[in-house]
Amino acid sequence: MRVVHVPLGQRSYDILVGDHLLPRLGGHCARLQLGRRCAVISDAHVAPRYSRPALASLKAAGFEPCLITIPAGETAKNLRCLQRCCDLLAGHRLERTSFIVALGGGVVGDLAGFAAATYMRGIAWVQVPTTLLAQVDSSVGGKTGVNLKAGKNLVGAFHQPALVLCDLGTLDTLPGRELRAGLAEVIKYGLIRDAALLRRLERDLDKVLARDGQALATVVARCCQIKADVVAADEREGGDRAILNFGHTVGHALEAISRYGKYLHGEAIAIGQVVAARLSAEQAGLPPRDVERARELLARAGLPTAISLSAGQRERLLACMRLDKKVRAGEVRFVLVKRLGEAVWGKAVSPAAVERALQTSSN
Amino acid sequence: MRVVHVPLGQRSYDILVGDHLLPRLGGHCARLQLGRRCAVISDAHVAPRYSRPALASLKAAGFEPCLITIPAGETAKNLRCLQRCCDLLAGHRLERTSFIVALGGGVVGDLAGFAAATYMRGIAWVQVPTTLLAQVDSSVGGKTGVNLKAGKNLVGAFHQPALVLCDLGTLDTLPGRELRAGLAEVIKYGLIRDAALLRRLERDLDKVLARDGQALATVVARCCQIKADVVAADEREGGDRAILNFGHTVGHALEAISRYGKYLHGEAIAIGQVVAARLSAEQAGLPPRDVERARELLARAGLPTAISLSAGQRERLLACMRLDKKVRAGEVRFVLVKRLGEAVWGKAVSPAAVERALQTSSN
Repeated sequence: MRVVHVPLGQRSYDILVGDHLLPRLGGHCARLQLGRRCAVISDAHVAPRYSRPALASLKAAGFEPCLITIPAGETAKNLRCLQRCCDLLAGHRLERTSFIVALGGGVVGDLAGFAAATYMRGIAWVQVPTTLLAQVDSSVGGKTGVNLKAGKNLVGAFHQPALVLCDLGTLDTLPGRELRAGLAEVIKYGLIRDAALLRRLERDLDKVLARDGQALATVVARCCQIKADVVAADEREGGDRAILNFGHTVGHALEAISRYGKYLHGEAIAIGQVVAARLSAEQAGLPPRDVERARELLARAGLPTAISLSAGQRERLLACMRLDKKVRAGEVRFVLVKRLGEAVWGKAVSPAAVERALQTSSN
Repeated sequence: MRVVHVPLGQRSYDILVGDHLLPRLGGHCARLQLGRRCAVISDAHVAPRYSRPALASLKAAGFEPCLITIPAGETAKNLRCLQRCCDLLAGHRLERTSFIVALGGGVVGDLAGFAAATYMRGIAWVQVPTTLLAQVDSSVGGKTGVNLKAGKNLVGAFHQPALVLCDLGTLDTLPGRELRAGLAEVIKYGLIRDAALLRRLERDLDKVLARDGQALATVVARCCQIKADVVAADEREGGDRAILNFGHTVGHALEAISRYGKYLHGEAIAIGQVVAARLSAEQAGLPPRDVERARELLARAGLPTAISLSAGQRERLLACMRLDKKVRAGEVRFVLVKRLGEAVWGKAVSPAAVERALQTSSN
């Protein structure tokens, strides 16, 4: 088992990465000195598979868990679903010392974490991410929230978990498409912060795609470590944390205009990263051959790297980007990569340049 | 103009108490160095009266405000209304540097503050409380939130405002019933923390009820100062801040079982304070004559001090109290007063003792 420590003062916590962690959930929670009552929030896909061992382990450790199951998929990430969860938390009489276990992918983590952030103005929560994307991305940093019609994650809170368990065994049953979507974030960490990780991925990608335990453990722990370093330096995203949004400006907008249906998050940001890499070559000095290297790695991972948009769709995409949380004074800001492993943030990019990069990527 | 400073480190802010502050809202906001775009959130009662000068002042200072009007009354304090507000904030393209002005009473403050706490994971907000209750209570401490069917303020966040303007002129148009409801919190500050304030109220109550500017200014500033002291020592209510909940355990439950309709918050906690004072005499050594002194002052302020409940209502009241945020390990905790001006918190009180105190107060 590998342990990644996320150093955030009083809000510090550990991420445990390894096999067979789920059956030990209760024991790990017992060490947190919380109340006995808790709620496991999961979704309709994950609950049938993993809620039983989670609940059994919690009960064996003396806790009184209830199970709340939300619909699977991004469309559940809304305030109505938050309302339902909170009503059920109150119904199960969760108190201020009670806690929530988020058992599932990114949607479950974001929604359950937001419920934990706001129920009784904040109770503790433990994250058990069951997708590669959630393990390398949403398990670190405490961003929680739900979507509005106008865009993704527009309502939420920063609320750090008390503990994260990344059980690599849960990835065995992950659909291939979701595993690949998670790789989009993995590749992102290489592009923005770690050229060595990028080389490792170019070498070991087939092993990762084959879910080789050793290869996965190394990659997941390294990504968590990178994100922990970035978040520790800038918890509330006043500055450098923004580099984690590489590929997300276009990616989020793509998800929004397709109403969170067509693309998985990882697929949308794969396309977004190719666009951002092209802009990086045009405006930040990234060598064109490295744009191609990034694109090729994403393609090898089975991710989309190009998109064909009608004029109307392109217009909606640009309008949507102007609603991005990184917008300042109406100007869209991008994270760009100067060289592989080194990102810069807050770069104003003109709509014309974005259009050019989008069109190139549709050829 | 009086200035009460709330010292909370990076989250410190000032409360300005005086006349004619609303027309200077824009100028005060300009000093906060926020973005130009902002939203004034108000309700159907307050907006027709005060939104025009607020918007005019903001525009004159170079801001671009929009107005969001919510229904008046406690029933608007829910997640559906939060959703509507957030959709409108996104529609007006509020950004991370934008801010919200809460113009109204406690409901507007709690809801608008919660919107500010969660929109884009937190933007700045300025509070302009227009009721006595909001000026002396919700203007200090950063508690924001909405109600669930199961109870009041069960979903929310701590989010300190950047500035509070208590314009005493807005109290001129406040209905008498609401002014009296605000006095319930004013009297509470005397009971839990300041015997001198209590004596002042016994002397000047008629002036306050007649809305004498000088008397109001003194009382509002003193209450804000007391609350600021308490909150500064314990921002997240880990301990001493709980004393502010004197009278609220029964009060909140009364509001919940009457579905937030029959009693104003101040009326409910007036009854709650009489119950808590009786429990204080029984369990914390408060002299019985001081229970009577408290009851008499509340009655002179025109507030209800007794309630007649059926057996079924009493049962529902007790069940509701067990859902209070202060419950630990299923036990209901009370704030009690040892002597006038000195409170203790976290006192476990048996349901039987609560029933006794309730029945006494219905005689």
